Amino acid sequence: MNQIDGAFTIQQDRLKRRIEELAEVGKLGETGVCRLALSAEDRAGVELVRGWMEEAGLQTRIDHFGNLIGRLDGRNPDAPILMIGSHIDSQPYGGRFDGTIGVLGGLEVLQTMNERGIVPDQPIEVVAFCDEEGCRFQKGLFGSRGILGKLEPDELERTDKNGITRRQALLDFGCDPDRFEESLYAQGRIGAYLELHIEQGPILDKMEEPVGIVSAISGPLWWTVEMTGFAGHAGSVPMLMRQDALLGAAKVIVALNDLAKLDPAAPTVGTVGHLQVFPDSRNIIPEKVSFTVDLRDIDLHRRDQREQELRQEIEQIAMQHGLRYTITEDTNSKPRYCAPWIKDIIREESTKLNLRAPELMSGPFHDALALSYVCDYAMIFVRCRDGISHNPQEYANYEDIACGTQLLYKTVQRMCAT
Amino acid sequence: MNQIDGAFTIQQDRLKRRIEELAEVGKLGETGVCRLALSAEDRAGVELVRGWMEEAGLQTRIDHFGNLIGRLDGRNPDAPILMIGSHIDSQPYGGRFDGTIGVLGGLEVLQTMNERGIVPDQPIEVVAFCDEEGCRFQKGLFGSRGILGKLEPDELERTDKNGITRRQALLDFGCDPDRFEESLYAQGRIGAYLELHIEQGPILDKMEEPVGIVSAISGPLWWTVEMTGFAGHAGSVPMLMRQDALLGAAKVIVALNDLAKLDPAAPTVGTVGHLQVFPDSRNIIPEKVSFTVDLRDIDLHRRDQREQELRQEIEQIAMQHGLRYTITEDTNSKPRYCAPWIKDIIREESTKLNLRAPELMSGPFHDALALSYVCDYAMIFVRCRDGISHNPQEYANYEDIACGTQLLYKTVQRMCAT
Repeated sequence: MNQIDGAFTIQQDRLKRRIEELAEVGKLGETGVCRLALSAEDRAGVELVRGWMEEAGLQTRIDHFGNLIGRLDGRNPDAPILMIGSHIDSQPYGGRFDGTIGVLGGLEVLQTMNERGIVPDQPIEVVAFCDEEGCRFQKGLFGSRGILGKLEPDELERTDKNGITRRQALLDFGCDPDRFEESLYAQGRIGAYLELHIEQGPILDKMEEPVGIVSAISGPLWWTVEMTGFAGHAGSVPMLMRQDALLGAAKVIVALNDLAKLDPAAPTVGTVGHLQVFPDSRNIIPEKVSFTVDLRDIDLHRRDQREQELRQEIEQIAMQHGLRYTITEDTNSKPRYCAPWIKDIIREESTKLNLRAPELMSGPFHDALALSYVCDYAMIFVRCRDGISHNPQEYANYEDIACGTQLLYKTVQRMCAT
Repeated sequence: MNQIDGAFTIQQDRLKRRIEELAEVGKLGETGVCRLALSAEDRAGVELVRGWMEEAGLQTRIDHFGNLIGRLDGRNPDAPILMIGSHIDSQPYGGRFDGTIGVLGGLEVLQTMNERGIVPDQPIEVVAFCDEEGCRFQKGLFGSRGILGKLEPDELERTDKNGITRRQALLDFGCDPDRFEESLYAQGRIGAYLELHIEQGPILDKMEEPVGIVSAISGPLWWTVEMTGFAGHAGSVPMLMRQDALLGAAKVIVALNDLAKLDPAAPTVGTVGHLQVFPDSRNIIPEKVSFTVDLRDIDLHRRDQREQELRQEIEQIAMQHGLRYTITEDTNSKPRYCAPWIKDIIREESTKLNLRAPELMSGPFHDALALSYVCDYAMIFVRCRDGISHNPQEYANYEDIACGTQLLYKTVQRMCAT
């Protein structure tokens, strides 16, 4: 259902056609997509989108990080760039909308501007960042970190499951890692960053809202917890003498769940997604259990509080069951807040479009996370059916995508002095 | 500390020497043993023990199931046999005492009788059963089930991790699966069965008792439970919308533990030893969790009750978290009780030896389980340090082993009309 009052400025049909056409590249089953970063499928996708960028009148280039960039110079090519980005690489068992709607939506915005003869004051670039997903080399946001000089020292030596290094994959893609310098964006070059993306969660779907405004990307706290007890025969060790590491882990899982729900109004989430038992035999009491903890909140103070409470719970559970434990902090990202002034613009424009556009937190990472460290940024979320993503079942209504793109168009108009 | 009043009839030093010598065959590190069933190490162990059996004056044979049998004819070779058995095959990462003390203890009993010129009325056989452990072909109690005609149809086609079938391994061992018939024991041939074994649990150690009398082998109830929820991004699905299969499994683990402890005086034990998560990724809410349940009790009525309570808990947990589940029953063994008349004899003899010999349940299986279906049986347990077994750290005091063997000797004297 189109909630926008009046016709779209952007061309909804063209946008839909392009999303569908891009979905044919690396198609998986009826509705899925597999376009791993820097693969032949990824290359074919990049070439397809590059053609559309040129058709839209943009200057295009593929930089040495594998990013595809389409540029509109504007009246003042040296002014700070308004960048619109996302990605077109996918999960190995992924969907058609994750990333692609941001790239094709951004392209649609620039093409519409060109077609209407709108010349912005500053340059606008739409970017398909290379390897946002990070599935192939187990580290994502590659292109968006790359242009900001934020790669880690040994990152090019990471290998995929066939033993191919990222360096080699970049060379095969036509990029030259020795020339990264040429593709960097100097401090101050990027003025602001916008990203349109599917929500990848169920909130907008439950609220029956086509689009939402992101308040922040809530960086996760990631732990690996290892609890160690004492193995024994499942039939011969009385309950009260046991040091069962899996029982301890189970109680931590329940405690984390309770803590995340403590404040029902807060968006706190806590997850144990990975768990491994040793020796993992049906008639041996588990000696060692290793599991991950993922804790997120838009409010860092509250997240810190929950973290402390969880540490206390783990300590108590370990004491109660005679377990030793270690907590390894794998990642500790702070929430990255969207710029209030851009959110204000988006909110005003959504009101004009008769959209409620509720504010919501982004649990997942996006390329915007990398950009948030160098410029003001904002994100528009599009409703995603049942919150399903990273799955061929992923689906976003084309009407909703058009709403989001129209809102992006209006926001861009306000942000560039035309 | 020798709690026995007066000297041992059996030769404690010889018994100890043999246990130590057998531990050299397939030695693993300082204290471990690896003698997988039907392996070259197993064969070397069988030959060593066979030599000792002949030294003891027994008639020996290796049957077509790979069992080593040492026999004393007695005055009436056709009378029902008093069988004393256990095994000398080991876990891949096993200890020196599991099984071996029963075989060498039984041998020591018969050798002592022969040396003292004691001729029993009925035949007595000491048996080292083939493949009690079941590690190599994933199915144990092979020799003890074999002689009773209780093998399953396709059992000879099971393969080890190198692809060798049990049939081939038997042939390589010098056995002939086509002649199994010759090695069967007809109904009524075995009059009674005795087994001496380390406890493999911590009860006697905690009670500071060198030996105990087994009340029953508590057959386990074995389930595989699969809980299915709905995957989602760990960062984007609010807590109250989740269908987290691992959270459900964690609550079942806690519930099973609580149920097993409900009656603190009961020997009920409940264990989840194996658990697997899908997709097992740190930032994805678990969609599917598969885990085992092992529930044991000497009292079948109480075990049935706990089972029903656990089923209710699973139903409630699944409802609460929007999970589907299946419960597959993999094994449902009933407890097999030891013969009261043999237990009475053991108790009387232990009192004479100044041993308290408390009664306790056997959680683990033993060859006695197979024999329990054809004759009266009893077991004597020897204390095992910290309850550790199936591990190179497994340790039983030689003094305790001698106590158990002396008690076995006295029990045999009472059971055979000499």
